[in-house]
Amino acid sequence: MIFPIFFTFALLLSSSLASVQDFCVANYKAPEGPAGYACKKPAKVTVDDFVYSGLGIAGNTTNIIKAAVTPAFAAQFPGVNGLGISLARLDLDAGGVIPFHTHPGASEVLLVAQGTIIAGFVSSANTVYLKTLKKGDIMVFPQGLLHFQVNGDKTPSLAYVSFSSPSPGLQILDFALFQNDLPTELIAQTTFLDVAQIKKLKGVLGGTN
Amino acid sequence: MIFPIFFTFALLLSSSLASVQDFCVANYKAPEGPAGYACKKPAKVTVDDFVYSGLGIAGNTTNIIKAAVTPAFAAQFPGVNGLGISLARLDLDAGGVIPFHTHPGASEVLLVAQGTIIAGFVSSANTVYLKTLKKGDIMVFPQGLLHFQVNGDKTPSLAYVSFSSPSPGLQILDFALFQNDLPTELIAQTTFLDVAQIKKLKGVLGGTN
Amino acid sequence: MIFPIFFTFALLLSSSLASVQDFCVANYKAPEGPAGYACKKPAKVTVDDFVYSGLGIAGNTTNIIKAAVTPAFAAQFPGVNGLGISLARLDLDAGGVIPFHTHPGASEVLLVAQGTIIAGFVSSANTVYLKTLKKGDIMVFPQGLLHFQVNGDKTPSLAYVSFSSPSPGLQILDFALFQNDLPTELIAQTTFLDVAQIKKLKGVLGGTN
Amino acid sequence: MIFPIFFTFALLLSSSLASVQDFCVANYKAPEGPAGYACKKPAKVTVDDFVYSGLGIAGNTTNIIKAAVTPAFAAQFPGVNGLGISLARLDLDAGGVIPFHTHPGASEVLLVAQGTIIAGFVSSANTVYLKTLKKGDIMVFPQGLLHFQVNGDKTPSLAYVSFSSPSPGLQILDFALFQNDLPTELIAQTTFLDVAQIKKLKGVLGGTN
Amino acid sequence: MIFPIFFTFALLLSSSLASVQDFCVANYKAPEGPAGYACKKPAKVTVDDFVYSGLGIAGNTTNIIKAAVTPAFAAQFPGVNGLGISLARLDLDAGGVIPFHTHPGASEVLLVAQGTIIAGFVSSANTVYLKTLKKGDIMVFPQGLLHFQVNGDKTPSLAYVSFSSPSPGLQILDFALFQNDLPTELIAQTTFLDVAQIKKLKGVLGGTN
Amino acid sequence: MIFPIFFTFALLLSSSLASVQDFCVANYKAPEGPAGYACKKPAKVTVDDFVYSGLGIAGNTTNIIKAAVTPAFAAQFPGVNGLGISLARLDLDAGGVIPFHTHPGASEVLLVAQGTIIAGFVSSANTVYLKTLKKGDIMVFPQGLLHFQVNGDKTPSLAYVSFSSPSPGLQILDFALFQNDLPTELIAQTTFLDVAQIKKLKGVLGGTN
Repeated sequence: MIFPIFFTFALLLSSSLASVQDFCVANYKAPEGPAGYACKKPAKVTVDDFVYSGLGIAGNTTNIIKAAVTPAFAAQFPGVNGLGISLARLDLDAGGVIPFHTHPGASEVLLVAQGTIIAGFVSSANTVYLKTLKKGDIMVFPQGLLHFQVNGDKTPSLAYVSFSSPSPGLQILDFALFQNDLPTELIAQTTFLDVAQIKKLKGVLGGTN
Repeated sequence: MIFPIFFTFALLLSSSLASVQDFCVANYKAPEGPAGYACKKPAKVTVDDFVYSGLGIAGNTTNIIKAAVTPAFAAQFPGVNGLGISLARLDLDAGGVIPFHTHPGASEVLLVAQGTIIAGFVSSANTVYLKTLKKGDIMVFPQGLLHFQVNGDKTPSLAYVSFSSPSPGLQILDFALFQNDLPTELIAQTTFLDVAQIKKLKGVLGGTN
Repeated sequence: MIFPIFFTFALLLSSSLASVQDFCVANYKAPEGPAGYACKKPAKVTVDDFVYSGLGIAGNTTNIIKAAVTPAFAAQFPGVNGLGISLARLDLDAGGVIPFHTHPGASEVLLVAQGTIIAGFVSSANTVYLKTLKKGDIMVFPQGLLHFQVNGDKTPSLAYVSFSSPSPGLQILDFALFQNDLPTELIAQTTFLDVAQIKKLKGVLGGTN
Repeated sequence: MIFPIFFTFALLLSSSLASVQDFCVANYKAPEGPAGYACKKPAKVTVDDFVYSGLGIAGNTTNIIKAAVTPAFAAQFPGVNGLGISLARLDLDAGGVIPFHTHPGASEVLLVAQGTIIAGFVSSANTVYLKTLKKGDIMVFPQGLLHFQVNGDKTPSLAYVSFSSPSPGLQILDFALFQNDLPTELIAQTTFLDVAQIKKLKGVLGGTN
Repeated sequence: MIFPIFFTFALLLSSSLASVQDFCVANYKAPEGPAGYACKKPAKVTVDDFVYSGLGIAGNTTNIIKAAVTPAFAAQFPGVNGLGISLARLDLDAGGVIPFHTHPGASEVLLVAQGTIIAGFVSSANTVYLKTLKKGDIMVFPQGLLHFQVNGDKTPSLAYVSFSSPSPGLQILDFALFQNDLPTELIAQTTFLDVAQIKKLKGVLGGTN
Repeated sequence: MIFPIFFTFALLLSSSLASVQDFCVANYKAPEGPAGYACKKPAKVTVDDFVYSGLGIAGNTTNIIKAAVTPAFAAQFPGVNGLGISLARLDLDAGGVIPFHTHPGASEVLLVAQGTIIAGFVSSANTVYLKTLKKGDIMVFPQGLLHFQVNGDKTPSLAYVSFSSPSPGLQILDFALFQNDLPTELIAQTTFLDVAQIKKLKGVLGGTN
């Protein structure tokens, strides 16, 4: 009767591998490190740590840009922590715009799920790569480069974006320049923008100084 | 008149950065290396290298698994070469199945775009993480672990999968075991499957020996 | 008399480098992160953290596969934590088998220390790479691909395997499929195996449902 | 007389290590890959491949920004290819400005060698980190974030910047927006800038459309 | 009046990105991991975490080597933690020497800021790369290779070194061999040095046994 | 009759994955890159690229150190190229010594296969980690640190070493110092060794100047 012996073998193996790092589900309570969040103990991990439903809900686009970004980064989706990938949902109403922005730590691939999207990025050599994307098209935006998405149509667009990092970051140009206390004079010096233009956008976005 | 001077400055900078590696669009003619394909010369790169339309077309599901996988890996989509990310499209007809498989070099995030999908993976500790996903749900499959997707419904399902590598690989369990010349005797020894079962599946899948 | 001055210099340097990360010996009590275990304080590290004797003892092969795997991964051998390498010992009795398996996060090099071993792996293109290895031969199994080892001889074999990760993981195909609660119906759908075959192996391996 | 024997041993070792990758000096004639330039044959490498004198010469600051950037990236300095590091020299005349920019693929550390520099960066959370740096101060700018440097003094400043990549890239905001053919209308939509402002800066920087 | 709506949008985004890993400022109190120190909470980070003034002060060179190394590694400069870069300052008095040493985990680029420096490294093939560097010259020392710096002049030299790691380590050959309790007999066997020579240097450097 | 349809599906998949990077067997004729050798075309790869028999032959220990190192690095063993791992064989006759050395680009794990070995390494903090290893013991030497192995017994020892890189490099201290044209005066300055001692070892090892 071989069963008992076999189980010994099997159990021995499993236990010796108890903490193998197949995955590292984010434990938001422990301190973060350079590589991401600490790991939940495997025994406490459930399938729901690997599933996220937040991208199934349309973002609220009743705002000035007629658009919404719904992230599923490691901060929202614990299962991707440490795995080098994450997603987000883009809703663009008619005329909606995701303004010029960068992801400091990741490359992005955009997939048009509905409608059309005018997308572009600019390289370090200042070349523009611009395309109008139809449903089903995908476009890649290399790491750290300025890019944008616009819905030029009369109907809403939906896109899903994938990132090569669980925490890609998102730096929106206008927020970075006009939604904080960076002195207007410094912005003018470092962007060549007119002071009046800067003050106007600070007014809209709530920047000070 | 400052313009000329300024251009000098600008050009000097651009030229000195001419070959900065913002991206490395795949040049399929040069030899590959461990990090991916060689790079096209920046001057020959166009926006179409960064856009791929192949995922807009439904795969042909009139086959034994009633499913199709359409990859947009570096081998099909030159723009993702070297960028740590790629995508694919999954079409599952009613009852369609993406059989047990692994991606040797990447983690995967699946997004259900239409219908429902029963998805699961198994960890090194042999724990099963199983979930029925609705439209808009996403699920992550950690790198290298066995996983599958099934359409348990009466209507077709569509999903898009993202990978943490431009060349994630795809090893389908049944193909690996039964669609080559691996001797039946060795398969029996290393899988505990009955010889009759192996011969039957080799027959279906075209394996020899 | 220069000594005092010199010591000042020396001590200054040493202290300023007190926590340089030459190594990160696993501290099993602190929370794990995506890059591995937390580090023991250098002052508490001893040479025994860098030495492991567990591979000197033959594994118990009196089991159904007539084989044993003895790991020296970061979970057993704290000194390799964070260093991108680990080892294990394989004991194969006459006719012993390490069944089809993968290491989700690492490549492997096998060294035959005693006897002969029939080893093989299958690529994503379903090509089989199969070889009978003699004492002193080494064979590499690229990351994440299905592979196996068999002792076809009448005498025991011994092998040492090295991995390109301190936590390579080990997913044994039969355990993943038949040693948990994955429903038989789903296994049948996703492997094309007959229900009778699945139930038989679940019986042997202790799977349920 | 042991010498011959010893040499046998030594030569055997050296030859067997002939192509060990201690370094990979850039061969600008062979195709580039995602990890950098191809390697010069070790036999053709000289110490001058590891030394660069271009940073010893002050850049020409008689331009609109009263500043100059002199890079020593892999494209100029073959010895750093593949080594994860590069340098550049910044010359800022009185009132000189390095406008808002990012390095898509690298973190930067700036060292003030002469004069004072007002430096700042903005995080993804739109927080500004701003400081006036004195001679000898260093400041780090995390990867991919918008940052700038200004010489607020009456005398020239000199700084050296180090990067965590041999090809960090350099995307200057104004050049990316106003020095190419990106349509004014699209820029207005994606930056909220007034059309008049955009046209004015395109005029200065030579942008079209 | 669109402002309120707009703020909703802005705040929503910011909060959802609250813990994006733009940076990971070292928290010296939490346990270290293989990738570096744990991260300070973003709310507690200030610009002073990203600025370090310690390199503005000349090191004390009144010692046996007439030289000093002042590090700005992650252990001294919290802002570089996790960012793949760090700096140090070298002061060499007339005739000063930074003895043969390695950085186990990083490549180095040296910049001569004042005076001249004779620098060299040795490759795995035992080739010497030696150069006398003038002010403004830079030289790269590939990861892990033995190298040294000497001031052959009558006047002091100053250099700044950059590393491709926040914790490059520093192993000074003489300290490694002669400033600890490694038995003289073993040193003799493993270096071919005469016992008298070893005892003499142990005497100078404070080694025992 | 489903076979044809099924094959369509199967072939489609295989072809689309034709150049997936499961592995990158070294092509020694194409130019090397920072990540390793270029890849052989998959169609030309055979199982013998993944198998190496050179470690089955004892090295010639009739030399001054009574020891031999037989590498199986990417330069000798094409199958490990790009896979982050390699091996070597150490033969130590009675009294044999592998002198102080480093591996610039890799951590090492040593396995004693026969006899006993006295092994040690020194950390950046100049701490010695020294142990006498018995058959079956393993010891890890963290990346880039000075270490050695000695056979203190009357009988030969055999060890196998694994590295966390396919091209770990090997810098033997005595060769680096005394087997090239580095001027004796510079060696004396940078090692504190007596000129007579240096000249003596240069004589034995064939160094000049």
